[in-house]
Amino acid sequence: MGERHSHRQTAVGGTSALTIAEVRLTPVLIADPPLLNTQGVHQPYTPRLIIEVVTANGITGVGETYGDTCYLDLARLLADALPGQSVMHLNGLFTLAETVCGEPEGVSDSVDTGGLRGARTADKLRLSVVSGFEVACLDALGKALGVPVHALLGGKVRDRVEYSAYLFYRWAEHPVSGAPLDDWGAALDPEGIVAQARRFVRDFGFASFKLKGGVLPPDDEIAAIRALARAFPGRPLRLDPNGAWSVETSRYVAGQLVGTLEYLEDPTSGTAGMARVAQSAGMPLATNMCVTTFAEIPEAFTRGAVQVVLCDHHYWGGLRRTRELAAVCRTFGVGLSMHSNTHLGISLAAMTHVAATVPDLGYACDSHYPWQTEDVITARHTFHGGRLTVSDAPGLGVALDRTALKALHQRWLDDDGALRDRDDCAAMRKADPAWTTPAVPRW
Amino acid sequence: MGERHSHRQTAVGGTSALTIAEVRLTPVLIADPPLLNTQGVHQPYTPRLIIEVVTANGITGVGETYGDTCYLDLARLLADALPGQSVMHLNGLFTLAETVCGEPEGVSDSVDTGGLRGARTADKLRLSVVSGFEVACLDALGKALGVPVHALLGGKVRDRVEYSAYLFYRWAEHPVSGAPLDDWGAALDPEGIVAQARRFVRDFGFASFKLKGGVLPPDDEIAAIRALARAFPGRPLRLDPNGAWSVETSRYVAGQLVGTLEYLEDPTSGTAGMARVAQSAGMPLATNMCVTTFAEIPEAFTRGAVQVVLCDHHYWGGLRRTRELAAVCRTFGVGLSMHSNTHLGISLAAMTHVAATVPDLGYACDSHYPWQTEDVITARHTFHGGRLTVSDAPGLGVALDRTALKALHQRWLDDDGALRDRDDCAAMRKADPAWTTPAVPRW
Repeated sequence: MGERHSHRQTAVGGTSALTIAEVRLTPVLIADPPLLNTQGVHQPYTPRLIIEVVTANGITGVGETYGDTCYLDLARLLADALPGQSVMHLNGLFTLAETVCGEPEGVSDSVDTGGLRGARTADKLRLSVVSGFEVACLDALGKALGVPVHALLGGKVRDRVEYSAYLFYRWAEHPVSGAPLDDWGAALDPEGIVAQARRFVRDFGFASFKLKGGVLPPDDEIAAIRALARAFPGRPLRLDPNGAWSVETSRYVAGQLVGTLEYLEDPTSGTAGMARVAQSAGMPLATNMCVTTFAEIPEAFTRGAVQVVLCDHHYWGGLRRTRELAAVCRTFGVGLSMHSNTHLGISLAAMTHVAATVPDLGYACDSHYPWQTEDVITARHTFHGGRLTVSDAPGLGVALDRTALKALHQRWLDDDGALRDRDDCAAMRKADPAWTTPAVPRW
Repeated sequence: MGERHSHRQTAVGGTSALTIAEVRLTPVLIADPPLLNTQGVHQPYTPRLIIEVVTANGITGVGETYGDTCYLDLARLLADALPGQSVMHLNGLFTLAETVCGEPEGVSDSVDTGGLRGARTADKLRLSVVSGFEVACLDALGKALGVPVHALLGGKVRDRVEYSAYLFYRWAEHPVSGAPLDDWGAALDPEGIVAQARRFVRDFGFASFKLKGGVLPPDDEIAAIRALARAFPGRPLRLDPNGAWSVETSRYVAGQLVGTLEYLEDPTSGTAGMARVAQSAGMPLATNMCVTTFAEIPEAFTRGAVQVVLCDHHYWGGLRRTRELAAVCRTFGVGLSMHSNTHLGISLAAMTHVAATVPDLGYACDSHYPWQTEDVITARHTFHGGRLTVSDAPGLGVALDRTALKALHQRWLDDDGALRDRDDCAAMRKADPAWTTPAVPRW
């Protein structure tokens, strides 16, 4: 199953048992509901990449990251170079990646896949790949040393990590035949969103709510937030239109929802616009688009463009870089929350470990996990009261379900390429052939 | 020997062997030569604090930090609270210290001991204490897991760490009877400084040089730097007057030495002054006075007041916080070098481990170590080509010399209190009864 990149050199030294003997890459396609965003709609199946590093003494560590072709291409280069290195050498992993991955062609100064995750740079693409290997190495190292991953990050400061309900406008079904089905039904108005939220509370116990916006005209989304506020008085609420609004529209929405929202996430695109909105928003502006790389921090922080950064270990370069981001934010008095994209249980374990170690993670984390019905781990994570208990087992505390992994990989192998690169615009065109990438601002 | 703070509670869980059963604090007085700085002169003996944490299964980790009374008082509070905690819980160590150390009285908005290390705040004082415990916990954890401390920091990215020669104006002997003697002789003019530098090269192989300035009028120190440049053409040179100069004097010295100095360290006191000097200095300004806490970073970085931060794990809060500082500097394009104060071999081991893990530590580190003839470890560190080899032994890779520790502690016990708090001004008054704390700027 997957691709094997094997040992090429003999390690020396007392910790040779921690030398990587083999790396396995397994791209998969996982079922995803028809969740709407400003770019379009989620595909019926989304690519992810499962990374395994196997040490000389047979310990396997697992990681997970984006699975689109551009990530997979870089992952193969890194997987080729990694055998012979130690899973302890996490700092060196970044240097190695810079050496072997080089500067991908045609990847600079554009927006990231789907237009939902900010700038797309060669650094960010490489870090998004390295992060999956870093998590796999941490998992292996923790197993080898008999300590949980959070201990390798300095130890947990909390026993449970809180997540928020991630609400989406959605259709009942994908507009294509043979797509996966679920029983959530459509949510296209305030009543539908409130009903979705009630199910999130009932099934998972979430106590805070984030609505993915940028889908309907702003007044409709304001109405949805107000309906949530009435249904769940006092509970933290967030709205994220993925930069779809103009500065003027952002100010209008902020004015309507001040006192109702915990924070407004990426109302408009670009640091300059965010800074203008922030001046009068009356509430913190959060981002996973304006600030997604360390290079973007100085200007955004100096201009006061963002008050909360949504960290995402995938594109910030792993769990240790996420802790570094937390330190930068702490130094500049900027808050920290956590972003999510469609992901499986390996990434949720990694998110939970790092979140457990950051004292000033002041907000419930985002996670798409409840929307994912498929997984590659043997025991799915279970939310209680909207929280996950931090594992104290060695490593991440998850085990690969190889039967499931094989089946999801077979789906990837069977795909003709149409789904291997996530494209929410293309998915939307299945329902609306005239759909094109929306110009920003949409409103 | 020293003070024992023992176990009070029973640990549970699979990692109970890593629970701290006992903490030992051993204040010592160590011999120090009559090195001059702008405040005065080093005392014949300087206080340091040796910290030992002993785990439930008998592993001892060692740390070292400042030993003055104000540090020792806080260390006792933390030592009392630590038994029962795990050496793995390094993030929790900081929370615990905040809880038990509280806000020391009369410690805020003043300058640090001796006026040479910038702002003195309750946070900085507490972090200076916590750092000694953090290093001791990392040493114990490394020994318990069988990995070097650098592996607990993500692994070394270099096998050897380069240090610079730390040149001082100095007298041949302390102005008091019974003080320790050495054979370095006096250095009070350019010829003396060059001779001192030649011995540093001969004995240790250093390839870069830092002169502690602020002692003689600026033109004399300019002459010393020029003499060094003639004697060691092309070698990196630095000058550090500890903020003794006005903005105008700083600009004058920078103008005289542009093209000769690698960087100018703390020419003047305060962020505003440093920013003014930086505008026209023509070379990077480094600091271990203007920026010594995370709280000072935003203003200094935003105003461009400093181009190189000299990290010091003692007052930045330990090895992991030092790595966080490195991340903040990297994010803002500010360089990183390493500061030193009088220290022993435990701290040098800690400095070397963390320096080995920071990719962008672009300068040779400072260390007073060659000036120290006494130590508390069994095998003193040896510089080859100005470099130390990074230890791959479990933990820090040093072992306590208990005979030496006992003797140096006895000296502390025998002291009547005159030397337990380092005071370079008071030491200078032994030679010059009229000496008072110099007003800044001196020149």
